[in-house]
Amino acid sequence: MPLVPYVEDDGATGIVREVFDDIKSSRGLAEVPNFWRAIAHRPEYLRDEWQKLRHILETGTIDRKVKEMIAVAVSATNNCDYCLHSHTDALRALGGTDEEIVELMSVVDFFNGSNAVASGLKVDYTPPVRAEADDA
Amino acid sequence: MPLVPYVEDDGATGIVREVFDDIKSSRGLAEVPNFWRAIAHRPEYLRDEWQKLRHILETGTIDRKVKEMIAVAVSATNNCDYCLHSHTDALRALGGTDEEIVELMSVVDFFNGSNAVASGLKVDYTPPVRAEADDA
Amino acid sequence: MPLVPYVEDDGATGIVREVFDDIKSSRGLAEVPNFWRAIAHRPEYLRDEWQKLRHILETGTIDRKVKEMIAVAVSATNNCDYCLHSHTDALRALGGTDEEIVELMSVVDFFNGSNAVASGLKVDYTPPVRAEADDA
Amino acid sequence: MPLVPYVEDDGATGIVREVFDDIKSSRGLAEVPNFWRAIAHRPEYLRDEWQKLRHILETGTIDRKVKEMIAVAVSATNNCDYCLHSHTDALRALGGTDEEIVELMSVVDFFNGSNAVASGLKVDYTPPVRAEADDA
Amino acid sequence: MPLVPYVEDDGATGIVREVFDDIKSSRGLAEVPNFWRAIAHRPEYLRDEWQKLRHILETGTIDRKVKEMIAVAVSATNNCDYCLHSHTDALRALGGTDEEIVELMSVVDFFNGSNAVASGLKVDYTPPVRAEADDA
Amino acid sequence: MPLVPYVEDDGATGIVREVFDDIKSSRGLAEVPNFWRAIAHRPEYLRDEWQKLRHILETGTIDRKVKEMIAVAVSATNNCDYCLHSHTDALRALGGTDEEIVELMSVVDFFNGSNAVASGLKVDYTPPVRAEADDA
Repeated sequence: MPLVPYVEDDGATGIVREVFDDIKSSRGLAEVPNFWRAIAHRPEYLRDEWQKLRHILETGTIDRKVKEMIAVAVSATNNCDYCLHSHTDALRALGGTDEEIVELMSVVDFFNGSNAVASGLKVDYTPPVRAEADDA
Repeated sequence: MPLVPYVEDDGATGIVREVFDDIKSSRGLAEVPNFWRAIAHRPEYLRDEWQKLRHILETGTIDRKVKEMIAVAVSATNNCDYCLHSHTDALRALGGTDEEIVELMSVVDFFNGSNAVASGLKVDYTPPVRAEADDA
Repeated sequence: MPLVPYVEDDGATGIVREVFDDIKSSRGLAEVPNFWRAIAHRPEYLRDEWQKLRHILETGTIDRKVKEMIAVAVSATNNCDYCLHSHTDALRALGGTDEEIVELMSVVDFFNGSNAVASGLKVDYTPPVRAEADDA
Repeated sequence: MPLVPYVEDDGATGIVREVFDDIKSSRGLAEVPNFWRAIAHRPEYLRDEWQKLRHILETGTIDRKVKEMIAVAVSATNNCDYCLHSHTDALRALGGTDEEIVELMSVVDFFNGSNAVASGLKVDYTPPVRAEADDA
Repeated sequence: MPLVPYVEDDGATGIVREVFDDIKSSRGLAEVPNFWRAIAHRPEYLRDEWQKLRHILETGTIDRKVKEMIAVAVSATNNCDYCLHSHTDALRALGGTDEEIVELMSVVDFFNGSNAVASGLKVDYTPPVRAEADDA
Repeated sequence: MPLVPYVEDDGATGIVREVFDDIKSSRGLAEVPNFWRAIAHRPEYLRDEWQKLRHILETGTIDRKVKEMIAVAVSATNNCDYCLHSHTDALRALGGTDEEIVELMSVVDFFNGSNAVASGLKVDYTPPVRAEADDA
């Protein structure tokens, strides 16, 4: 159960209705996902957050599926249930398979683990020293 | 300054030498990066960690550059200095630009923020309800 | 289900009884909340933790309601279910509304997001340079 | 040193110039803080992020100083250097003293500690049971 | 419900079967725990992860029970349900009592709390200055 | 540079002086470590925090060295510079070697990594099913 009630379509007016309509039409949804209903108690914040997400996902050069992978990676690191469900579903809708999701998690595993060690031992970074090509 | 001394090439024998040689030859490096030198005080762990990383980065279907992006995303979430330097450098070596790095960070920003809200308000996930196609 | 059983009132003697009595009387409760029952397997720790909380909440100049907001903000960042329930309830008991809770979450959102970016890009801090008042 | 160069005033055109001008005029600054310069490589993100921050800090019923305290609390939990400097400075500009900053940290301490224990022991939350008023 | 199906014994061939057999025989289990079944969609990762864990737990000089305590401490800090259950069970199998688990949590509490304060106030570390022995 | 000035011995009176004296005498130190000086702006919090630490480290059945290992494990997970220095020094003073510190980090690595995967895939925990002894 959420800690605040979800704002329902019936109660949505002004900015909230505009954003709810845009969420539904731009994503082909019949219902506004709960995250947006929960934060709709602050209409301006709802609008800013939705605008930000649209721009982040819909502009730029990084592939949409890659952005969903990053969403899953960050959500696994932060252990966010809602977000893991939501973005794993999105990843599957874009063609993600069980094997790919576990491959993604193996990357998340390695870097969560090695981050703690690199920070924990206070390892200094020095730029890579490339081997010279062996000519002659 | 690191919390343990780095194992130097001179002191590397057995498993450590094998791994150090593999790191240098497989990556075209003249010097073993400090992370691997720091953990070389436990040779088996060094070997397992290096094997795991090679397999994670070199097998599967997710693009290598995408894996570096995920490394950066996780490292930003965990605030790991060494890893941020190391994987931003790797991303640039694979063609990453300033604009792309900031685009990546905008995704990291959004999900670190919304993870805290979705968890903080304990929002329930329900699968998306798609709008029916309007036919007739 | 908790990973250790809760210490019941019947089993409470010595330090544990004293702390349980103080929790109930100082907060007007008929039952000791589960957190305190869980840690009561180490009576001295129970007492130190309870003392620390009382002093933190009951002394100083920061308003009690603000302290509950900080508790919610930290608990959302750490994704602690128990604590989110407990301190949202406390916030509501002090007059917190749905709108205010979402306003609080919008602040938590922004800083969790921007923290990851500021750390992730390793942005240097330099003190603000104020514009001079334009006089003449 | 940051992982991307800061966008300078000279290089700012279009959206970036508008946002930079708004940052300076609304805050009375002669120079745009580095955080905004770093993310300006993605002009739309810069604009959305700045808009979101302005609305979060400038609207609603939670006091501005309280919002800065929450910023510090979240930044301490996430260990974000830039943000800790920036928002401690902001807190001092609003009258915050050494004593108040440490009082804030004592709250941050308690909840970071108890969050780990409540989650770590998987303590169940049950709503508080109030003692009945003793009448008769 | 997991986000990927568990690989069942029936479906296990090649590397997966070898690892599943090793997990069962080395731990005296009739069934492979769900964590390993979930990641078995990537057989090489499954094998590397299992090898790494065996070597970490079975070699070196740190006591096995201490390693389980560290597993619980890290899992409480990260709030990982599966891992808390799994390693608290392991700790109990090695003789851990309710009192000891709460004692462990009191250490986890203190350092999660004080970490946030030491980082939050940006306290400098200087090596301890020992008092001279008072002789004469 | 810390975000609040350190309270010096000269400025210490009342509770602060008592705690400073206890820190120095109980630990054989000539100078109070900076952490305690930083929080001394709130004398009661200083006293409660110091009491809590003394009781946590000095009572119970978990070995002192193990408690320092847990401190290091938590601090690596949270990436706390001050605490990593302080507790690695303490571990060395109790006989910790480079090999042991890296062994500890290998455990920290594994569980930070696997925590993210177990949470990220939302793996269900079921208690271990032991193989029956094969008798006949």
